[in-house]
Amino acid sequence: MLSNQKSTINHQKSIYSVLSKDNGSCARRGELRLAHGTVQTPVFMPVGTQATVKTLSCEEVESLGYEIILANTYHLFLRPGIDLLEAAGGLHRFMSWNRCILTDSGGYQVFSLSNRRQVKEEGVTFASHVDGTRHLLTPENVAASQMRMGVDIAMCLDECPPYPVSEAMARDMMDRTLRWAKRCQAEMGRLRDGEKGRRGEGGGVVSLSPSLPVSLSTRLFPIVQGGTYPALRKESAQRTVEMDFPGYAVGGLSVGEPREILGEMVEASVSALPFEKPRYLMGVGKPQDILEAVERGVDMFDCVLPTRNGRNGQALTWDGPRNIRNNQSRQEDGPLDSACSCSTCQRYSVQYLSHLFRAGEFLGLRLVSLHNLAFMVDFINQIRKSIEESRFVEFKKRFLERYIDSKEQRA
Amino acid sequence: MLSNQKSTINHQKSIYSVLSKDNGSCARRGELRLAHGTVQTPVFMPVGTQATVKTLSCEEVESLGYEIILANTYHLFLRPGIDLLEAAGGLHRFMSWNRCILTDSGGYQVFSLSNRRQVKEEGVTFASHVDGTRHLLTPENVAASQMRMGVDIAMCLDECPPYPVSEAMARDMMDRTLRWAKRCQAEMGRLRDGEKGRRGEGGGVVSLSPSLPVSLSTRLFPIVQGGTYPALRKESAQRTVEMDFPGYAVGGLSVGEPREILGEMVEASVSALPFEKPRYLMGVGKPQDILEAVERGVDMFDCVLPTRNGRNGQALTWDGPRNIRNNQSRQEDGPLDSACSCSTCQRYSVQYLSHLFRAGEFLGLRLVSLHNLAFMVDFINQIRKSIEESRFVEFKKRFLERYIDSKEQRA
Repeated sequence: MLSNQKSTINHQKSIYSVLSKDNGSCARRGELRLAHGTVQTPVFMPVGTQATVKTLSCEEVESLGYEIILANTYHLFLRPGIDLLEAAGGLHRFMSWNRCILTDSGGYQVFSLSNRRQVKEEGVTFASHVDGTRHLLTPENVAASQMRMGVDIAMCLDECPPYPVSEAMARDMMDRTLRWAKRCQAEMGRLRDGEKGRRGEGGGVVSLSPSLPVSLSTRLFPIVQGGTYPALRKESAQRTVEMDFPGYAVGGLSVGEPREILGEMVEASVSALPFEKPRYLMGVGKPQDILEAVERGVDMFDCVLPTRNGRNGQALTWDGPRNIRNNQSRQEDGPLDSACSCSTCQRYSVQYLSHLFRAGEFLGLRLVSLHNLAFMVDFINQIRKSIEESRFVEFKKRFLERYIDSKEQRA
Repeated sequence: MLSNQKSTINHQKSIYSVLSKDNGSCARRGELRLAHGTVQTPVFMPVGTQATVKTLSCEEVESLGYEIILANTYHLFLRPGIDLLEAAGGLHRFMSWNRCILTDSGGYQVFSLSNRRQVKEEGVTFASHVDGTRHLLTPENVAASQMRMGVDIAMCLDECPPYPVSEAMARDMMDRTLRWAKRCQAEMGRLRDGEKGRRGEGGGVVSLSPSLPVSLSTRLFPIVQGGTYPALRKESAQRTVEMDFPGYAVGGLSVGEPREILGEMVEASVSALPFEKPRYLMGVGKPQDILEAVERGVDMFDCVLPTRNGRNGQALTWDGPRNIRNNQSRQEDGPLDSACSCSTCQRYSVQYLSHLFRAGEFLGLRLVSLHNLAFMVDFINQIRKSIEESRFVEFKKRFLERYIDSKEQRA
């Protein structure tokens, strides 16, 4: 019971339990106990980058049944700023979302959004995409920022390799990501213990307000990297696990590599992760990819796909994605998906949605985003049920037959 | 009982009743009985130009308590087209709004949006702002289009003078508007009686589908014009009333003329309208202007102001409009208006709304548009109550003291 011992050492109760397991695969049904509630897994987390799930209200995201959403430290650090969020009573209170929040550390955004960035061992300096001002993200200020926002799950700062990347470079980035994870963990421990709880770190970019305590309930997840090299992925996972965290993320996938290798990379990463801790595959959200990862024992997902595609007029259905901007949709009297019970499908026809998109009306973006998030809820609920009934592999097969085949027929 | 006789001749029941009258002014509380429900007056109608009240769902507009909205024949004629709307079962079914709809005829839009237009006695030819194609609006096809959409209140095609305009030109336009009103009325009568119900008029632009009946419940309102000339306004009203319609609109105001003359123009127009018919002041929606017009006996209003200003970050409050994009709003923890019970004010802070606007997030547009329409409901409800209690003039005075004075203090 090595991991239990370590949990005790870290003064942290386990946040995760496996409730049931599929027999034919590594898929598991579990629950995640966080400060703002219990989250059923597998779980898909809608992305609320800038403290809003784009076009939707918190009421809507709640009523769809979501128990956790994702926000982004990089974006919130720049706007409205961590000081303001802390003074507002934390991110939950600021955006009026009372369920769980996971924040990405900002590492991925610095690498993908900021063109003027410089990585040193201390951290990453970058120019803001908002106003060009220069900032420094360090493992320490990223940990502190997320605790000051009071989020339920914080992510360590990582260095995300591009695709393609050489093995040597992937190894260097993996090593740095491991060192940074250790520093994030140490900083969070220090803040939590109150030893250095009221002073700033990380080049003075973040200075903790003396009057406001950091969150004591924030849980820190590290990120397994290793590019597209299975041996590195495994090593990254093993060395990360040695540090003992309450949960583990797998990063650096869905960054342009061939889809076929996703399963292999997930497997190499997950194989070295402890069974009794939650596993989170970052940025993955295509239904077919979620199925590959659930099959290999992944519990948590996030992706902009349902909302971004919704804003582009692409609706998710059991028969595959459909484009409501095409000509066929102009005179279609029925709902997007007759099997769907979301408020969009209950009230509005495809031809009306098609009109809203053609006329450039915001309501169209809302209604299809909402439908897509409702689809993801249904999809994940079906996954959970199939695991409980130990028929996940069969569910996956049937889903893909309908989802992928219908899509190809239509294309 | 002249008007009752005429109603009988026209086979139309009266659609309007005055329920109570203010003693100190011409303000009246009434109700409007239309095919899709009863509408309490005075009433403010949110504008849903393209079959959507911008950014808001029908559920939201309903739950705010609105009983009637406005849509636009010009825009819907171009996109999605009257044939499609008719095939969809009418505008109500198309947009899933089951309460009342009034459509503007499109006259104003042709004059203000279309740069290549040509007015002849037959009608107006214009180039579509969507795709440049040329179209013809005639009194006949405008009437037919609105009946085919199945709206509750249709407007006659009118010629809206610009500001400033010479008296001679204002008279010419008034005369044409009167001739066109007669043609609209005649066409609607013909369609209603079924005598020529299944054939097209107006240059072949509209061809009625043989299989689909036009609405028998659409009520037609003519538009009083006359520019800024009180004598013309009065003459326009008198000659329009001679044709006997179920209600009357006053148009051509709020087009750039000095605000001070609004009251005079409304008074000149309304003075010649029958007491027992509803009066609609088109395009007017500033609270202070609504008060001027209600005082003179106007019952119905529409304006893009609450939603357009909402999308620009201007919120309506009892202390005057406020700009949530200003610096002060960035750290304001409370709601937009502590007296407001709308879902925006119940849940979201000014600083969050401010963040949404700064970050370019759609949700901000929604939340402030919704608040502004909630404000208009509260405002109109207070007007109704003050009329019922015969203290409208006092209400108006108190409202303006707070609304205008606070605004000036803040500016």
